[in-house]
Amino acid sequence: MIAMDHIDALTELLGEKAVVTRPEDMEAYETGARYDRGRAGAVLRPATTAEVSAAVGYCVRNGILVIPQSGNTGLVSGSTPDNSGDEVVLSLDRLSRQFELDLDNRAVRVDAGVRLSELNRRLEEHELFFPIDLGADPRIGGMIATNTGGSRFLKYGDVRRNTLGLKVVLADEAGTVLDLDSELRKNNTGVDWKQLFIGTSGAFGIVTECVLNLERVPKQSATALLVPASGAEVLPLLNAMEERLGAYLSAFEGMSKNALAAAFAHVPSLKNPFQAGNIPDYVILAEVSRTWAPRDGEQSLDSVLEGVLAEIWETEEAPLADAFIGPPHETWALRHALSEGVKHLGKLIAFDLSFRRGDIMVFCDHMKAEMPAEFPGVTICDFGHIGDGGVHFNLVVARDSPLLTDPAFEQRLREWVFAVAVEQYGGSFSAEHAIGRRNQAYYDFYTPEKLKEMAAGLKTITSPGRLGSVRFG
Amino acid sequence: MIAMDHIDALTELLGEKAVVTRPEDMEAYETGARYDRGRAGAVLRPATTAEVSAAVGYCVRNGILVIPQSGNTGLVSGSTPDNSGDEVVLSLDRLSRQFELDLDNRAVRVDAGVRLSELNRRLEEHELFFPIDLGADPRIGGMIATNTGGSRFLKYGDVRRNTLGLKVVLADEAGTVLDLDSELRKNNTGVDWKQLFIGTSGAFGIVTECVLNLERVPKQSATALLVPASGAEVLPLLNAMEERLGAYLSAFEGMSKNALAAAFAHVPSLKNPFQAGNIPDYVILAEVSRTWAPRDGEQSLDSVLEGVLAEIWETEEAPLADAFIGPPHETWALRHALSEGVKHLGKLIAFDLSFRRGDIMVFCDHMKAEMPAEFPGVTICDFGHIGDGGVHFNLVVARDSPLLTDPAFEQRLREWVFAVAVEQYGGSFSAEHAIGRRNQAYYDFYTPEKLKEMAAGLKTITSPGRLGSVRFG
Repeated sequence: MIAMDHIDALTELLGEKAVVTRPEDMEAYETGARYDRGRAGAVLRPATTAEVSAAVGYCVRNGILVIPQSGNTGLVSGSTPDNSGDEVVLSLDRLSRQFELDLDNRAVRVDAGVRLSELNRRLEEHELFFPIDLGADPRIGGMIATNTGGSRFLKYGDVRRNTLGLKVVLADEAGTVLDLDSELRKNNTGVDWKQLFIGTSGAFGIVTECVLNLERVPKQSATALLVPASGAEVLPLLNAMEERLGAYLSAFEGMSKNALAAAFAHVPSLKNPFQAGNIPDYVILAEVSRTWAPRDGEQSLDSVLEGVLAEIWETEEAPLADAFIGPPHETWALRHALSEGVKHLGKLIAFDLSFRRGDIMVFCDHMKAEMPAEFPGVTICDFGHIGDGGVHFNLVVARDSPLLTDPAFEQRLREWVFAVAVEQYGGSFSAEHAIGRRNQAYYDFYTPEKLKEMAAGLKTITSPGRLGSVRFG
Repeated sequence: MIAMDHIDALTELLGEKAVVTRPEDMEAYETGARYDRGRAGAVLRPATTAEVSAAVGYCVRNGILVIPQSGNTGLVSGSTPDNSGDEVVLSLDRLSRQFELDLDNRAVRVDAGVRLSELNRRLEEHELFFPIDLGADPRIGGMIATNTGGSRFLKYGDVRRNTLGLKVVLADEAGTVLDLDSELRKNNTGVDWKQLFIGTSGAFGIVTECVLNLERVPKQSATALLVPASGAEVLPLLNAMEERLGAYLSAFEGMSKNALAAAFAHVPSLKNPFQAGNIPDYVILAEVSRTWAPRDGEQSLDSVLEGVLAEIWETEEAPLADAFIGPPHETWALRHALSEGVKHLGKLIAFDLSFRRGDIMVFCDHMKAEMPAEFPGVTICDFGHIGDGGVHFNLVVARDSPLLTDPAFEQRLREWVFAVAVEQYGGSFSAEHAIGRRNQAYYDFYTPEKLKEMAAGLKTITSPGRLGSVRFG
């Protein structure tokens, strides 16, 4: 519980609009996108960096834990309060006024509460976009706190690569505002402090403003579904495509048979392009794109892609067994239906892993071989971003499975998957979802003591107050 | 002076080969690439991370300041000792054995002492390279410590963007080795500590090993010298090129008339392609490249470039006044001769600045207008990387100028240039050379107190011992 005195003081500081305490109004802020439901002592909705600073300073001086919340679309319980009712949620949802476009610098300055879709909508007329392509529609602050990658990482990189500057409020008694909001692309005059606030779940400070790199919206694209000759040929196929397409190649996504089957079963509008509808063991979605409009006499992108695939097809020991060039909206519809499809199969236990690129398929094969003995009744429905090593390693259990009656089952399963991924393959247990409450135990287990000590030290020199859902130290 | 006891103990620890004390053998390690000459108490040349750790631990326990030195090609006195004879240089020049290539991951693990040229030579047969294109030939450790960018930043980014992992020795009593040597492209499971050792001049730890992203060597390229319609048209021209060439565009370098004239005057083998040899006020070197070999029926890159330039030429209020397509080796020879040419004009006072892209030409015009009144006799010979906002703002004074007899002149000039660049235009006083002894005073002056405090705290939690030429706190 938060004492009424504090509510009154915060209302005084921020205004009535910015302090939410009615249970029915707080509910949306207490409920995560997929998993969690907590209880907040209050929800604060500051509309400016100065208001965030005032709110955070007050909470720190009074020992109140602040949970920063952005779009609240994350999957690791990073932005919702626990069940105590003692935590205050600080939402960025009113912090979205600023929009300063610098066309020459190909950059924009925005408040951290702006939604990705809204940002891109406003950039449309300039044929620019923020090139992080996600299924969800988060606010920018949360994208920074988790350093999201998305489906076109291969070409554009992650949020870190596309962030030029930040403004950050620290959790100290003053609510110190750090101006790290450079618009420069090159600047090596000291520690690049902004890096510490990217991908660290808001534990070291609350990002309130940022300067982002923009890219030109592609005016042409072509896609194909590729069937690799075998799982072992996925990487040779990627290498062959990278060699022949260079920076044209904007996506190389892998989809397992189980994930595809789930999508076809549950999204009837999808076209099944495979021979007699037989879904191959593994399918790649490859996309090529370019920023300019088609020119007279220039080969179309479809035909470029076709030519490249023919060339690969004709190499000795070709890594390609089959290919279907289709319109991008159809091909991507299939890719985007995977999550939805998989959810229909039963209870979903999702992992956001990453590996060296060459280890993705090896890991998946390893798990396919071991799962029936280790966890019979668990189905693997993986898909992922082969180009950057990311795997959405989704496991599904039928809703009536006896496994689900064992309260220890899910944790045993998670521990086993992480042990194989991290210890045997040197992978990451959180590729682009960051830590959050759900991964806290794995952070504690897998992080070397020295780095935990350093993180605790870093916390002291940035935000000594109580901030965020994750304990880094 | 370093006591003989210490020399003996270090020799015991590292072996005779790794401890240099004869003045004539130390000289190369005491002398910087352009400016400085100090005096070392000893030069240590460890060949492994374990030896670096042993050496650093010993020095910390005995209060000896260690100056890490990589290729010693930097321009800010970052890697040479002062004149006391009390500092020990720790050179990475023997730390260059490891070379583990992961073709599927398009990454390589190397020791930090490997030279850029040697790395790329070993990658050649795989048609890969580390895509940081520099005039000098540094070792990788120093490139990380300065976060160099180079001539193709526009396409490939800086060292930060291309570093996947690091191994770092901290300056504490144990010479702690931090394993941050991930080969993953996506990993958000805590603080991305490696970021702190990139661009910070070795002040927080010595990088001994790294995992680097590699790119495919372009198999086709085409270049042109472009004459913008005016200085104000440089950015519209860049925007027009980016729009029409996307990721094909791999360089967009600016060259002032003065810099070009100096190159033509002092490097007689250069071809002057301009009408009647008249050098325009400002010239752009634009490069397009792609990774694949020419294909049958595909438009050549020269003709793509020609087509794009014709298209721009025909737009209303075209930003382009003239263009000369020429073979890449000739065009780049001109670009690479600028430094050499400028040095011949007199005493060179060099600045490595950066700006928002749209401010580069505005700043240069501002300086051209003000210089005659502020510092008569100083000639501006700028060139730079328009695509990323970097400017090599070179000032030249005739060797017989009375300015050079004024001992305060150079500092006054530096302070004025930095004041205009940083305070008026929000630029950076060190785009890609980092700090070093030469920029220490400007770091102290331009860094907010809060960030200095945080840096001092960071120093305590990483390398509390005496390390490097820069004081961050």
